Amino acid sequence: MKKKVNAAILIIGNEILSGRTQDKNVSFISNWLNTKCGISVEEVRVIPDIEKTIIVNVLQLSKKFNYLFTTGGIGPTHDDITAQSISKAFKLKYEYHREAYTILEKYYGKKKFNNGRKKMAKLPRGAKLIYNPSSAAPGFIIKNVLSLPGVPSILNSMIENSKRYLIKGLKVHSKTINLYTVESNISKKLGLIQKKNKKFVDIGSYPFFRLGKIGVAVVTRSTSLAKLKKANKEIMQLVKLKKIQILHI
Amino acid sequence: MKKKVNAAILIIGNEILSGRTQDKNVSFISNWLNTKCGISVEEVRVIPDIEKTIIVNVLQLSKKFNYLFTTGGIGPTHDDITAQSISKAFKLKYEYHREAYTILEKYYGKKKFNNGRKKMAKLPRGAKLIYNPSSAAPGFIIKNVLSLPGVPSILNSMIENSKRYLIKGLKVHSKTINLYTVESNISKKLGLIQKKNKKFVDIGSYPFFRLGKIGVAVVTRSTSLAKLKKANKEIMQLVKLKKIQILHI
Repeated sequence: MKKKVNAAILIIGNEILSGRTQDKNVSFISNWLNTKCGISVEEVRVIPDIEKTIIVNVLQLSKKFNYLFTTGGIGPTHDDITAQSISKAFKLKYEYHREAYTILEKYYGKKKFNNGRKKMAKLPRGAKLIYNPSSAAPGFIIKNVLSLPGVPSILNSMIENSKRYLIKGLKVHSKTINLYTVESNISKKLGLIQKKNKKFVDIGSYPFFRLGKIGVAVVTRSTSLAKLKKANKEIMQLVKLKKIQILHI
Repeated sequence: MKKKVNAAILIIGNEILSGRTQDKNVSFISNWLNTKCGISVEEVRVIPDIEKTIIVNVLQLSKKFNYLFTTGGIGPTHDDITAQSISKAFKLKYEYHREAYTILEKYYGKKKFNNGRKKMAKLPRGAKLIYNPSSAAPGFIIKNVLSLPGVPSILNSMIENSKRYLIKGLKVHSKTINLYTVESNISKKLGLIQKKNKKFVDIGSYPFFRLGKIGVAVVTRSTSLAKLKKANKEIMQLVKLKKIQILHI
């Protein structure tokens, strides 16, 4: 029987921390993991390109969750130190991976396969590859840590190739009900519904603004479709009672 | 004399973790802190709306960094548990804040000031307010932890009001040079330039795609403008040597 499987994401990159670049990988990976693999992301961290920091966080998060996904730091430049840091974290040799070397040499051609490019074939000993259909340089998995690149278009193109390494868990079903109301109008009763369904359903409430109107998106999440429907029925009773208009998007 | 001041950001919200909502607050807060206050964000975490998790992370991050900014969880609904959790983290009473209560009562009017809305006036004892020009419900600071709402437009409108509580640090200057080349063409020499300028300048290298062309954004960052210029001069010499075309945006 399937059970709950969770994951964390570790974003490695000064460019996200400094605010220069807007991260897009968290929502993509999280959505993909949930819908395709039934895996829930339960923590995300963004850290700088500092070896010691990477090591500490890889060890903490890989221990705490079923899987850890890292993004960034697997390119050819000096600030790409993910593979090297993960090797150190797990006390594994950081060395040329034969298959990765062959893939990259073939992709660039022997003449253009310079040291920067060769660096992308260096991985922790025992790593398995996550193939990259966009730009050849593979990601990798070692123990329960999966390392992907930081460029969203490349990451998106290769995430399917990480599927084979993952144990599938229970999918989280989710339903959004958009209401033209304010949070405080429903907060008390919604809190009671959450309390009643505490064990199986998570209820979130998020204000939105649409064409000058204020609304609340009520989001229910559960691994059980039946329990989700039950909670949503109770929410719809509250909506009726309060005569709240629903926004159908 | 000014010195380095750092901060962490703790995003509290299931909706970011699940991938439903794309976070926009990290890049905004980080940019604002750096340009307006000379404060560098050195770690970001995204965690669910779970009291125990919030407490652990607030304690860890507030200890490790000069400031901790939290976003989310300060509204009127059952899943808004930031103020309550921070109170517990610091073993402070969670109680009505007189000024916050007055502000909210005035904003909504006595009749419409229901329990959900009153909840937004409950803060850790001793907290000071961060005023909210958008929707009245204030953020707050207790010790070195500043709590702001999760809705980006509201957060953006009130961040200036957190400035009075912050010690200003050294601003990080930054320069981006966009090159039409591939990373591996410059990785070796760029690594040497980084090594040479290690103490004062951080050099990052980020591939980009623009109108079908591949490029590399080389980003230098330093608290010293002079050291930054020196490093950039060396990068420009490399660009000249390799006859690389520059993209002026």
